[in-house]
Amino acid sequence: MDFEKLYSERALSMRASEIRELLKISQQPEIISFAGGLPSPDSFPLDIIRKITKEILENDGEKALQYGPTEGLMELREIFAEYLKKDGITATYENVLVTVGSQEALDLTAKVFINKGDVVICGLPSYIGGINAYRAIQSRLEGIPLDNDGMAVSLLEDRIKELQKNGHTLKMIYIIPTFQNPAGVVLSEDRRKHLVEIAQKYHLIIVEDDPYSKLRFEGKSLKSIKTYDDNVLYLTTFSKILSPGFRVAFVVGPKEVIRKLVIAKQSTDLCGPVLPQLISYHFIKDNHVDKHIPLITKMYKRKKDIMMETMEQYFPPGIEWTHPQGGMFSWVRLPESINTMIMFQDALKEKVAYVHGAAFYVDGSGTNTMRLNFSNPSDEKIEEGIKRLAMVIKRNLK
Amino acid sequence: MDFEKLYSERALSMRASEIRELLKISQQPEIISFAGGLPSPDSFPLDIIRKITKEILENDGEKALQYGPTEGLMELREIFAEYLKKDGITATYENVLVTVGSQEALDLTAKVFINKGDVVICGLPSYIGGINAYRAIQSRLEGIPLDNDGMAVSLLEDRIKELQKNGHTLKMIYIIPTFQNPAGVVLSEDRRKHLVEIAQKYHLIIVEDDPYSKLRFEGKSLKSIKTYDDNVLYLTTFSKILSPGFRVAFVVGPKEVIRKLVIAKQSTDLCGPVLPQLISYHFIKDNHVDKHIPLITKMYKRKKDIMMETMEQYFPPGIEWTHPQGGMFSWVRLPESINTMIMFQDALKEKVAYVHGAAFYVDGSGTNTMRLNFSNPSDEKIEEGIKRLAMVIKRNLK
Repeated sequence: MDFEKLYSERALSMRASEIRELLKISQQPEIISFAGGLPSPDSFPLDIIRKITKEILENDGEKALQYGPTEGLMELREIFAEYLKKDGITATYENVLVTVGSQEALDLTAKVFINKGDVVICGLPSYIGGINAYRAIQSRLEGIPLDNDGMAVSLLEDRIKELQKNGHTLKMIYIIPTFQNPAGVVLSEDRRKHLVEIAQKYHLIIVEDDPYSKLRFEGKSLKSIKTYDDNVLYLTTFSKILSPGFRVAFVVGPKEVIRKLVIAKQSTDLCGPVLPQLISYHFIKDNHVDKHIPLITKMYKRKKDIMMETMEQYFPPGIEWTHPQGGMFSWVRLPESINTMIMFQDALKEKVAYVHGAAFYVDGSGTNTMRLNFSNPSDEKIEEGIKRLAMVIKRNLK
Repeated sequence: MDFEKLYSERALSMRASEIRELLKISQQPEIISFAGGLPSPDSFPLDIIRKITKEILENDGEKALQYGPTEGLMELREIFAEYLKKDGITATYENVLVTVGSQEALDLTAKVFINKGDVVICGLPSYIGGINAYRAIQSRLEGIPLDNDGMAVSLLEDRIKELQKNGHTLKMIYIIPTFQNPAGVVLSEDRRKHLVEIAQKYHLIIVEDDPYSKLRFEGKSLKSIKTYDDNVLYLTTFSKILSPGFRVAFVVGPKEVIRKLVIAKQSTDLCGPVLPQLISYHFIKDNHVDKHIPLITKMYKRKKDIMMETMEQYFPPGIEWTHPQGGMFSWVRLPESINTMIMFQDALKEKVAYVHGAAFYVDGSGTNTMRLNFSNPSDEKIEEGIKRLAMVIKRNLK
């Protein structure tokens, strides 16, 4: 059968996520991979999960196996709304939707807000999963450059005016303000406030994607954008502080938007997995979250330090990288003469992998950049992998 | 914020699934509900799941908690492809995609095949979740009537010609051939073959949704449509034979279509829940599936018999219903004078619930029909609930 004649427009233009394809290559055991976005397996609270899971299957087994509500389990929505108070976010269960990872939240916001051609503003660079979700719905993605304080919000208003002048419909600002993926930078407090003002003035919805803010190992916490404006859709996840395999994430937003997202979720997957939601509920209820996070941040700080020190020692001059205060990534800028996508083949020969930066740029720039993950590889592998990478870079500088 | 101005076209036309809304009402404990599509909690193999889960978390905990591949776990895809041989379906892991329930499979097929306005042919009536997935992507749904042998395939070709003549682009036939939801009927063997011929002739993809064929308690098994044509996309699920809360379902299709669905899944939710996939894998590997299914079908046959006998005894004359040989539903046709949506309020007063039939008709007909689920209520409640429903019907006949 000639399926090409049957595929939708969007399917014909679909591209496999470059990260997912790279991950497959870099999963070969002899390769040291900085390419993934995986938490350290040592960060999983396995003993606690074993205990909680056993209790659930003994006392609440039927519930764990039956269909759950599309919105997510009521007890999880309630306790998570309560938990958010510590972060200055006011919410009730009606403001909370449980999603299958934040990726599903991105897909649902795309479905609910975006018509073909509508503009979504994002960072330059920006998270590939976000780019792909909005691209899949045929939005027009417009990138605003980042610097060390995150998105250059000062450039935003002029760009919005220009796009409006050219007849585009603007809908959304998609932003990862804290320990940005891929750049690792944090949007400053001033810019957070300014961003909210602009979104209000131009009637745009802000999608604040926040998987990493709990993974701060240095510096002072900033309040989420959501705390400045209740209209913000706040996305967060248990993937980085409990388990990504559970696929338990949250959207926090205005009731009426949550209701629309719930309807979209009904036809997307009916409901999320129930047992992982119950485990997540008990993980919060039994006060494990705030006890467990410092174990992760201590580990990730150590890994980040090893990466920074090894880069300092072995990388040739003329290379810049971010020194993240949290999260899982450092962002490396090489001289313009190097194309990291081309260099990747050479890196594979030396059994080291990264994600080339251009994958994160909606305008195709960033060809001399790359993203390095420090959360997943072991300490020894970080050191050895950076040495290999240094060698590859030196060879490609010639 | 005025979100109405920001919502997408599809969001503005979104309707909450009537079943999901009804389920909420009918979950009040004093109501006997025939409205849901839930398996019996007694059908869950809890002891086996407890044992398997404990072993996974002890021996393979890190894998269970980490991200999994978008395609689904390799060992699950492989063993499921092997398992399908018993049903006459030839597949390798490359033909198998694991989805978050069959609902996600429907959403992904919509994304990959349907442009706005493309025609999807479905049964009249047809499963609401399928209708909603294809409606959400703004397809044009065309219904073909059913009789006791399933979709009236003889009407199909003329309808296709007419739609093509009127300039419509036809893409897909969506069908639940075995123990159809909602009607409970089975598409005959002749019609299965005829359907494949028509799909080939007019270059349409068949989406064969098969959640129920394993739940046959009477009569002779029929081969799936997939066995007649390898181009068919075959959807099945562990929701009805293991656990719906696990959200583990499968699409079996041509490699190249699976690859497109995988790309669509990357931006939809990145990957499905891993622990439930591992449990499902061991459930097949340890030969529990074929041992467990007869326990379910025995239970459902008993429940079906109770429902049939009680309807026979208490329903007034002039009412027809299907006598299913498997699955979870019977379909009731009342005199034309009764609108089951209106009667529903009266039923609630008597503490009994069903789904009114019109919800399953893409053309708004079927107002005198309703769907009754017999898998979920206890034996006693089926009897008592049908008595209540008989009373409601009699009152509304006057």
